[in-house]
Amino acid sequence: MFEAPDSPFLVPFDGSFRVADAETRTTGHKKTHLQKRLKVATRQLENLQRLLYANDSHALLLVFQGMDASGKDSTIRRVMRRISPTGCQATGFKRPVSNELDHDFLWRTTLALPQRGRIGVFNRSQYEEVLAVRVHPEMLGDQRLPLRSVERSTWDERLESILDQEKHLARNGTTILKFWLNVSAEEQKKRLLSRLDEPEKLWKFNPDDTVERRYWDRYMLAYEEALNATSRPWAPWFAIPADRKPYMRAAVAELIVASLLTLAMEWPEPGAKEQERFDAARRALEGE
Amino acid sequence: MFEAPDSPFLVPFDGSFRVADAETRTTGHKKTHLQKRLKVATRQLENLQRLLYANDSHALLLVFQGMDASGKDSTIRRVMRRISPTGCQATGFKRPVSNELDHDFLWRTTLALPQRGRIGVFNRSQYEEVLAVRVHPEMLGDQRLPLRSVERSTWDERLESILDQEKHLARNGTTILKFWLNVSAEEQKKRLLSRLDEPEKLWKFNPDDTVERRYWDRYMLAYEEALNATSRPWAPWFAIPADRKPYMRAAVAELIVASLLTLAMEWPEPGAKEQERFDAARRALEGE
Repeated sequence: MFEAPDSPFLVPFDGSFRVADAETRTTGHKKTHLQKRLKVATRQLENLQRLLYANDSHALLLVFQGMDASGKDSTIRRVMRRISPTGCQATGFKRPVSNELDHDFLWRTTLALPQRGRIGVFNRSQYEEVLAVRVHPEMLGDQRLPLRSVERSTWDERLESILDQEKHLARNGTTILKFWLNVSAEEQKKRLLSRLDEPEKLWKFNPDDTVERRYWDRYMLAYEEALNATSRPWAPWFAIPADRKPYMRAAVAELIVASLLTLAMEWPEPGAKEQERFDAARRALEGE
Repeated sequence: MFEAPDSPFLVPFDGSFRVADAETRTTGHKKTHLQKRLKVATRQLENLQRLLYANDSHALLLVFQGMDASGKDSTIRRVMRRISPTGCQATGFKRPVSNELDHDFLWRTTLALPQRGRIGVFNRSQYEEVLAVRVHPEMLGDQRLPLRSVERSTWDERLESILDQEKHLARNGTTILKFWLNVSAEEQKKRLLSRLDEPEKLWKFNPDDTVERRYWDRYMLAYEEALNATSRPWAPWFAIPADRKPYMRAAVAELIVASLLTLAMEWPEPGAKEQERFDAARRALEGE
């Protein structure tokens, strides 16, 4: 089984993570240097993905969470740049609808889990059920649950369900890495305004995002609790400073590379019987 | 609706395509020049995919067919290099299994069709049902069809089903481009042998592929008939010379770009009501 790579952004497994102490901005890294680091890491990732595919025994699940405009879309695009779409499936999870709501809250993300040999990417995920839904508990009404009232235990139970599923997945060969893109309220404001200013970004603007900003502190509390409850050696959370995109992208790419390296994958070699068939095939081809 | 771009590789819509006249190799193009053309085209494709996603009204389906080792995997990887996995879903279709066989032959590929705003890639497709299955009609036995015997009309009916579905999809906003990667038997032999020689490629080697070579001429006949029966202005086939990979990749990428350009997409602009909400959101943000 894989081991969580050491990192200053790793959310510790003992519940001691505090959002207030987590950096949103780092200084002292030149942009060109960060771009180079990203380039190196994406090349390594390209090779590791091919090894993953050739071995067909592990899967990798990358979960991206963060406030609006924290950079989830662009980080996914840049970090996965060199990955073949054949070996990678990304799924975005918006507010659940109709038949999704008629299932338990883990159902729709479970359907999108990556096959062996593949990388799965979740742009938002089941964690929204203990983040957005926790901040707006009235959403639970749509879910038609057998609940009398919403209590503290409702959220603990949800976190336990998520944790249990991740343990099961890890045991069965899925390496899970979770990234919280930790953007500051100030930087988010800048990015939302820039969406309004640029025609190429305007389609991403949603007026509701500005309303969501009023709940910032409640979101931070929900993140703190979710990350502490579910960061584990087999499914770690990383709280990535997100105010500087080049830094964020390099950090995410390097953590994925470091994690895949702990799997110590090799190119598969044929067994004795298989080798015989290969030799016969070679003779047939050469003798045509 | 989109228009098939003009190209020497476009399979004409009048049934006059002949495999024997289709090039597998082109000369007179420098490798560095081809790589540059690919780079330019993949950058254009990156922007076009974002437009597609922002507009959320068209989908693009790319179908790749070709003999083993014709370069389907690597072409998909190289051509889609700059596309975000969020906007692209690729599916490989191997020999159908269990519950797939219990459905009609279009069912499993239909499930994998791209949503609006997305690019779908099929590595092999429903066309195997009129190619591999036609060359090996005994495979029909697994499909438990209400058939007395396999006749010429069996294949005509299948081609008609495929054609009808593509017409339906095109009417409803899915642009379909189909690429036949036309590799020569000689070049295939070289590539299969190189899989045996390189540890990084060995996992792709399948001894059965060497057996399939015996049916080469029957495959070519099946391709000729399938391409003639289903190349249409709204879902064209392109027969791409596949013996030189850099040429093939540049040609495929440029055809995708040219096709998307015929859609004349623009960045979406808000309506009057929406603009009011945007203005209010801006005032709220700026006045915080």
